[in-house]
Amino acid sequence: MATYEDVAFDFRSDTVTLPTPDMKAAMMEAEMGDDVYGEDPTVLALQDRIAAETGMEASLFFPTGSMANLVALMAQTEPGRQLYCGARGHVKLFELGSFASLAGLSQVDVPDTHGFLDLEQLQKVWAPEIYYMTQPGIVVVENTHNIGGGLIYPVEELVDLHRFTQEKGVPLHMDGARLWHAAVAQGRSLSTWTRHVESVMLSVSKGLGAPIGSVLAGSKAVIERALPLRKLLGGGMRQVGQLAAAALYALDHHLVLLARDHTRCQEVFGTIKNLPWLEAVAPQTNILIIHTERPEAGDLVAHLTERGLKTLAISPSTVRAVFHLNLTDEACERLADAIKEWGRTR
Amino acid sequence: MATYEDVAFDFRSDTVTLPTPDMKAAMMEAEMGDDVYGEDPTVLALQDRIAAETGMEASLFFPTGSMANLVALMAQTEPGRQLYCGARGHVKLFELGSFASLAGLSQVDVPDTHGFLDLEQLQKVWAPEIYYMTQPGIVVVENTHNIGGGLIYPVEELVDLHRFTQEKGVPLHMDGARLWHAAVAQGRSLSTWTRHVESVMLSVSKGLGAPIGSVLAGSKAVIERALPLRKLLGGGMRQVGQLAAAALYALDHHLVLLARDHTRCQEVFGTIKNLPWLEAVAPQTNILIIHTERPEAGDLVAHLTERGLKTLAISPSTVRAVFHLNLTDEACERLADAIKEWGRTR
Amino acid sequence: MATYEDVAFDFRSDTVTLPTPDMKAAMMEAEMGDDVYGEDPTVLALQDRIAAETGMEASLFFPTGSMANLVALMAQTEPGRQLYCGARGHVKLFELGSFASLAGLSQVDVPDTHGFLDLEQLQKVWAPEIYYMTQPGIVVVENTHNIGGGLIYPVEELVDLHRFTQEKGVPLHMDGARLWHAAVAQGRSLSTWTRHVESVMLSVSKGLGAPIGSVLAGSKAVIERALPLRKLLGGGMRQVGQLAAAALYALDHHLVLLARDHTRCQEVFGTIKNLPWLEAVAPQTNILIIHTERPEAGDLVAHLTERGLKTLAISPSTVRAVFHLNLTDEACERLADAIKEWGRTR
Amino acid sequence: MATYEDVAFDFRSDTVTLPTPDMKAAMMEAEMGDDVYGEDPTVLALQDRIAAETGMEASLFFPTGSMANLVALMAQTEPGRQLYCGARGHVKLFELGSFASLAGLSQVDVPDTHGFLDLEQLQKVWAPEIYYMTQPGIVVVENTHNIGGGLIYPVEELVDLHRFTQEKGVPLHMDGARLWHAAVAQGRSLSTWTRHVESVMLSVSKGLGAPIGSVLAGSKAVIERALPLRKLLGGGMRQVGQLAAAALYALDHHLVLLARDHTRCQEVFGTIKNLPWLEAVAPQTNILIIHTERPEAGDLVAHLTERGLKTLAISPSTVRAVFHLNLTDEACERLADAIKEWGRTR
Repeated sequence: MATYEDVAFDFRSDTVTLPTPDMKAAMMEAEMGDDVYGEDPTVLALQDRIAAETGMEASLFFPTGSMANLVALMAQTEPGRQLYCGARGHVKLFELGSFASLAGLSQVDVPDTHGFLDLEQLQKVWAPEIYYMTQPGIVVVENTHNIGGGLIYPVEELVDLHRFTQEKGVPLHMDGARLWHAAVAQGRSLSTWTRHVESVMLSVSKGLGAPIGSVLAGSKAVIERALPLRKLLGGGMRQVGQLAAAALYALDHHLVLLARDHTRCQEVFGTIKNLPWLEAVAPQTNILIIHTERPEAGDLVAHLTERGLKTLAISPSTVRAVFHLNLTDEACERLADAIKEWGRTR
Repeated sequence: MATYEDVAFDFRSDTVTLPTPDMKAAMMEAEMGDDVYGEDPTVLALQDRIAAETGMEASLFFPTGSMANLVALMAQTEPGRQLYCGARGHVKLFELGSFASLAGLSQVDVPDTHGFLDLEQLQKVWAPEIYYMTQPGIVVVENTHNIGGGLIYPVEELVDLHRFTQEKGVPLHMDGARLWHAAVAQGRSLSTWTRHVESVMLSVSKGLGAPIGSVLAGSKAVIERALPLRKLLGGGMRQVGQLAAAALYALDHHLVLLARDHTRCQEVFGTIKNLPWLEAVAPQTNILIIHTERPEAGDLVAHLTERGLKTLAISPSTVRAVFHLNLTDEACERLADAIKEWGRTR
Repeated sequence: MATYEDVAFDFRSDTVTLPTPDMKAAMMEAEMGDDVYGEDPTVLALQDRIAAETGMEASLFFPTGSMANLVALMAQTEPGRQLYCGARGHVKLFELGSFASLAGLSQVDVPDTHGFLDLEQLQKVWAPEIYYMTQPGIVVVENTHNIGGGLIYPVEELVDLHRFTQEKGVPLHMDGARLWHAAVAQGRSLSTWTRHVESVMLSVSKGLGAPIGSVLAGSKAVIERALPLRKLLGGGMRQVGQLAAAALYALDHHLVLLARDHTRCQEVFGTIKNLPWLEAVAPQTNILIIHTERPEAGDLVAHLTERGLKTLAISPSTVRAVFHLNLTDEACERLADAIKEWGRTR
Repeated sequence: MATYEDVAFDFRSDTVTLPTPDMKAAMMEAEMGDDVYGEDPTVLALQDRIAAETGMEASLFFPTGSMANLVALMAQTEPGRQLYCGARGHVKLFELGSFASLAGLSQVDVPDTHGFLDLEQLQKVWAPEIYYMTQPGIVVVENTHNIGGGLIYPVEELVDLHRFTQEKGVPLHMDGARLWHAAVAQGRSLSTWTRHVESVMLSVSKGLGAPIGSVLAGSKAVIERALPLRKLLGGGMRQVGQLAAAALYALDHHLVLLARDHTRCQEVFGTIKNLPWLEAVAPQTNILIIHTERPEAGDLVAHLTERGLKTLAISPSTVRAVFHLNLTDEACERLADAIKEWGRTR
């Protein structure tokens, strides 16, 4: 069981957050209805709000971001085509290849070292129009970029990319699980980015701290296609009002907390950035990526675990720490100290 | 928005139920954790309990019964094979053909007029072992049978069917969305039926009145395969403890209410069974099926709607009324009266 | 090995035919080229000819009719939709469920007892426009109808059906593997039927006696989509000119022989139709269906085999004999006699 | 139409070869039968021969190598898993993504610059055993490596790779479309390589000069699974004896000619290797890869076309010339001269 106490020291992901008592109170008061019949007023309100904030025509609630991403693919392209996305993208790495086995797409790597797709490289690997070669179907970007360390997609890069995809007649989808982090970090609206994509997925169960859920936003046509696809995949839940209420509460009360997550992340980075036995990536939002000199990520994670701090080894020489609303100042200080200490003891 | 007052007169489905204040209180107190990491204690407790009650080795929570059914197929057979199920089965009719487009199965109709598969007919359509003909992959039964009118699967029929499927080496899955109704109606344990199948899906968001969720139970091997399949489909939710708490509360407090649903359903049937302008199917559980003399199901539904009673036309000449815990005695009486009245006015 | 002598007594199917010496000579003289590059003149000529004869804009050669049928589905609808076809149709029974595992379609049975789809029944099972129900994708008819016994699709039935599918905005495909038989039997052009469908598949390796191949005809748009789908499935062969030459030869020289097949089939039927221990279906083309009184199809087939005559048991009480150009008069007489004899000895 | 004269100057691919008069004569004399029923003696003989030469238990004839490769995947792994193959592999680039849309696999790039998979890199991208990450399903190597320039797989590299895949319990498939070229070039048996893989595909319509066909060889279990998969994909052709006879003829008479192709390829390379305006890859077999200094591959191809020589631009700065049995000495000399001339004129 995870208590608030536990989660206060859990840096593995911002998905581990527990709903606060006030969020729970909001959930309990939620108006509800059967959402398969389209009768849950709270989820309708959430969908309207997300549509408005992203500047999209419509949006749809999903049990997970993985399903919302998958439906974005299925609704906007067809089996037999190609998915272009970052070589370290979430869609490629952490969604069990649903783009292939369920959406029928073959994925093509695009370098994403800096958190955005290298347009020149994309053009290089872009399939020529020859009937016996697989043709492009959709392009996916990730903002902020998870494995890259919470990197924010530069708007000008997105504009250039979108110009290219529009010329090619191929939709551009944004995995914006942590798009709110980008918006808060730069003090800009969501639509700064979303006006340059055909669809976007946002997660409310990550930094915002709701227990469950993600939302897909796009044109009316896309969302109309998404509705039966959600049902097909088994995502047509019944009384989702409580989950939507948690999301609405999070938007009202937790969004402002993201700035604190970013500051804490910066502070830990500031403490460890000059340590000789590791290389920390300068964080832009709430994710801290630490590359160890040798393949000793497991060792660092174990060291931190002994000190009551949970983190994740995401490669043999990479440790990830994610900042979220349930953490305490104490936990963040202890993290910085423990990382310093590790260098001396290893 | 659906209020308790609304739902009290809503016979369209038992999926429309709203959580009671006490259920909500239980949800608020739920211990929680990240279920993708397997750390949500409440959902683990629910899964253990369902496994124990069905006599299965393990079980897994899902956002919907449609996803649990689909995963039962994917975990126990492979694309290119056949799914044998009732010609009016939920898996065939109401899951958007996921058995085909996602599981790659071709579905074969088996007559299910009486709510169970006609074994003789099944043997007749069973594919011969010829390499250039599609081979059987899985058999699905439904208990209770929704479109059939909540019919309970006769145990002896299930035993015979299971003997056949075992001989053929093909798994037998039970869509037991309303299996609890069968158990309560006959005063028997779940395992009366589940001992004769390889896997079973039970829904907690139907008659039991929890807002969201279903559970798939089966052998350890099946549930181990189900886990990544749930993630693949986008069903790997995060803090599901509240949903599981609602389910556990429902098992403790709502299960006993199913008997009342059955009694009310019988009472309405008793009032209308001799009306000359319709034919009502004698109910065994909580579903009342009314065949109109002519294709005027829409007319009957409209008549009832005018009187504040929601029902569903499931064919041009068939109306369905489903009984659940949020209904009131008044609603049931009004339903019987309004059906009688309709005959006089049509 | 099959010799002409063997095939002369082989009634299992008209796929068993061997190319004649003259057909072989035509194959040897075929102009050839790499058809993946679109450079094989003979296959281009064949495709033009089939397009012209069916009144379609274009056509495409395939290694098999199964692949051509599958591509017709894939090119004209999308995964997640429904395929409506005859309950005893070839697409349903003998193509290994490719409509499901490869095209992602769920198949819906339509009664086809008389060789054509019962429109009233089709309308009855036609899916209502509800977002959480699978939607129609394509309708497939079979002409002549194989399992039905070579039955010819009545044109007026097809016209009515096509009016319905056009209203619904759903394409109509004809599995016309033996469409030439229908045309010859009724002295009508192929377009008598093909003007009422969006696409049609014709086989040259059945009654026409070419060794390999089928052709899909349809609009330019359909055939343009079909081309990469053929490559996807692995049907993009290289120098197919010899196969196309065999088909062209067959059209020039074997088409006229179909009438003889029909006559022979009628003659055998005439001899056995009044036998009390079996029921033969009055043949319309080259397929003779014999229902045995009891499930003794295997016994009848064995009896015939002993007399050097190959036939096929297509159900426990159904034997099929197919007439083709390699048969001899002697074989046909012997078949009639042996069937009569079986009745006396069983 | 392609005449022998045309093909004599066609370096685009070795798929363009036309059957010689003697090969045609062999085709005409082929014993035939219906291969769906397993009754074609010539194809059975070919399958036995290929099984014997590769040291495999069984083999199966296919209309194309693309289908044989696809069936190798489908028969040896399952949807939802990963395909590891060369970043420039045929399976990845030229089979329309069938691995994804039909086999349900997600493809992972492995560097193959030298024509073989870099084992260290493979281990680096190999998926960790975490339930929510896609798991490995199959590894594919290509020998000789087409885009790499006909490179031969070093046996010691294959041994190391196979040791790794065996440890991981994942099958290793060889796309050996031009495996015979490797064998002839090094004077070794096919089994030198095939003993280190679970399955292998060989093409008879490439350098060997048969018009159509490829063969998949593997264990009995694999080939038994492959048989219905071939039918599923629409590859179950009828009288394939003539095609098999062409293949057998090619093995008897054309295999020896591959050495001449290699020599000619070397000779052209020798003439152009020191030209300053291009970089030719030292050929190991029958494929010559020429990198132009600037992206002027199209220009070089056009220059050669004007001189009656067909070649292929396989990237903006890469031209491929493939040597085969229909070429003449004159064509090869003219090719070398024309390439030299191009440098002076560009």
